[in-house]
Amino acid sequence: MLPQPVLEQAQREMLNWQGTGMSVMEMSHRGAEFMSIAARAEEDLRDIMGIPPNYKVLFLQGGASSQFAMVPMNLLRGKCTADYVETGDWSSKAIQEAKKYCNVNVVTSTKISRYTSVPAFTSWNCNPNAAYLHYAPNETIRGVEFPFVPEIGEVPLVADMSSGILSRPVNVNQFGLIYAGAQKNIGPAGLVVVIVRDDLLGNTASGTPALYDYQVLADHHSMYNTPPTYAWYLSGLVFQWIKQQGGVASLATANVRKARKLYATIDASQGFYQNPVDPQYRSRMNVPFMLADRRHENLFLAEALEAGLTNLKGHRFLGGMRASIYNAMPEAGVDALVSFMQGFIQRHG
Amino acid sequence: MLPQPVLEQAQREMLNWQGTGMSVMEMSHRGAEFMSIAARAEEDLRDIMGIPPNYKVLFLQGGASSQFAMVPMNLLRGKCTADYVETGDWSSKAIQEAKKYCNVNVVTSTKISRYTSVPAFTSWNCNPNAAYLHYAPNETIRGVEFPFVPEIGEVPLVADMSSGILSRPVNVNQFGLIYAGAQKNIGPAGLVVVIVRDDLLGNTASGTPALYDYQVLADHHSMYNTPPTYAWYLSGLVFQWIKQQGGVASLATANVRKARKLYATIDASQGFYQNPVDPQYRSRMNVPFMLADRRHENLFLAEALEAGLTNLKGHRFLGGMRASIYNAMPEAGVDALVSFMQGFIQRHG
Repeated sequence: MLPQPVLEQAQREMLNWQGTGMSVMEMSHRGAEFMSIAARAEEDLRDIMGIPPNYKVLFLQGGASSQFAMVPMNLLRGKCTADYVETGDWSSKAIQEAKKYCNVNVVTSTKISRYTSVPAFTSWNCNPNAAYLHYAPNETIRGVEFPFVPEIGEVPLVADMSSGILSRPVNVNQFGLIYAGAQKNIGPAGLVVVIVRDDLLGNTASGTPALYDYQVLADHHSMYNTPPTYAWYLSGLVFQWIKQQGGVASLATANVRKARKLYATIDASQGFYQNPVDPQYRSRMNVPFMLADRRHENLFLAEALEAGLTNLKGHRFLGGMRASIYNAMPEAGVDALVSFMQGFIQRHG
Repeated sequence: MLPQPVLEQAQREMLNWQGTGMSVMEMSHRGAEFMSIAARAEEDLRDIMGIPPNYKVLFLQGGASSQFAMVPMNLLRGKCTADYVETGDWSSKAIQEAKKYCNVNVVTSTKISRYTSVPAFTSWNCNPNAAYLHYAPNETIRGVEFPFVPEIGEVPLVADMSSGILSRPVNVNQFGLIYAGAQKNIGPAGLVVVIVRDDLLGNTASGTPALYDYQVLADHHSMYNTPPTYAWYLSGLVFQWIKQQGGVASLATANVRKARKLYATIDASQGFYQNPVDPQYRSRMNVPFMLADRRHENLFLAEALEAGLTNLKGHRFLGGMRASIYNAMPEAGVDALVSFMQGFIQRHG
């Protein structure tokens, strides 16, 4: 979901960006027009996230999944082991991919309990010689979120923030590298944003494709080859919209309110709706839920669609329903869902 | 440049695709709506190019440059050498990248003569044991184009068709693999289309990132991770537009006419405009030209811009001017440029 004002601006500018007579899609990525769009987007992102100058910001193709390989290819820096936290399907995929490149030390895993919580940091089996520690602060499929940032000393912390970025303030200084697929809180699919501390660059493994080499990409300001210009432009519009909303802190307040309303509805349903995640680790972005009577789920989805509530089908790994309540989802949208869910109990409970 | 009717349709559908109330950018890539868009685009491309059923069609992120690594990572299949033809800056970049993965046998090179022709096929030093032969049928920067398809027997032929695809009919059966960055004749930047013969899949080198493994991507119908949905959708609109234009054969006729007009203007200018490429290898897509008096070039670009003629600046490797006359450039646009070029001689010649 993208903010309505962003889509409207993109629509207005589709054939004629700011009087140039050109669509952004038709601009040369090295022309003055696109360079200004690109620079403004980076500046705004630095501003709203408070990204320090010793971090590079890259706008790349490939999606977050590309980072599952790029992180080890670039950050092992001669070491042969890396720490991984396994709290959901995405961090699990990151682990599978990293195994191609190094020994993966899984410091903790909730796989056996079907990814419904986050083990206490004190129980993690960290390796002080690991090249880095990788985790996913928000797992979209099961809806699990870390309420804390691991403090692991000198070992660089790497976070897959695909679904949590820009949903609450973060202290970038706590991270060695942050990456995020754009299609949740940033913009359209086809773009991944990487924020990486300077000193971690320049030790890419040999045999790494040029487009997987952070140093090469940073040297070329994300323009080693033609970047995904339109997705970059739309992301820039989203950053401007976030500033107009009062920044990330103000979105965070709204996000907490939106999530609380949904979980309260689930918890008040006397088991009609179910979410198995330990309440203190429930995601503010993705709220998966099942019906106690799973035969009702198709009916729920069909009636929801009729009521104008779309994209509620759960991930194919899990089934059930999932409400994605990213920044662009207005509180009124959550209210409509809550009221539909309550009505559904009355009709079918 | 994208066809005007395509941009207009995208604009109309920006906030509401076919009555769904959703932007294409907001669709789940696994939902019925996007799946139908994706399938239709592939079908239309198969139709207009005549792609046989034993070829996979992939819609991927990363741009054509990603293929410079993906081709050797996937097609070496245990061999240690590959043949490359060097006829311009792009094939040269492909060679540099391939050297990370194998012995590159440059079968012929025009580097020393600054990429202004194509050596006769009989002079090429091909290796019958090469894993494949790679070439770029059209080189965008210097404007060099192959008037023939190399016939190399059993060795799979790999073509970087980024700037020539859909500009003239090709016999896909002559190729093992064709790839093309979308931003010339297909759609917006951020998408690369790969057409690969079935039997070449399944021998990917170990250590290859999942997103660089054709087999993995083919198994998941280009949806191993979230694909660049909006670029895929726009490409589909372009394919529909091509069918409305009477297909590739009819575009090819127009492209020849457009190119002839420009080269005729250059050749009739008594050296005022210059294009150094051997006439039989001149590109129908990219027409680079210099002014004999290079001090006039900035003036040329400034006056052209005033006359509404944009994107004429030559590639930064080469300077001068470059007219890109892809499918979406209407003949009237070429006529306007020709008339401007003739007027410029009168004013400043």
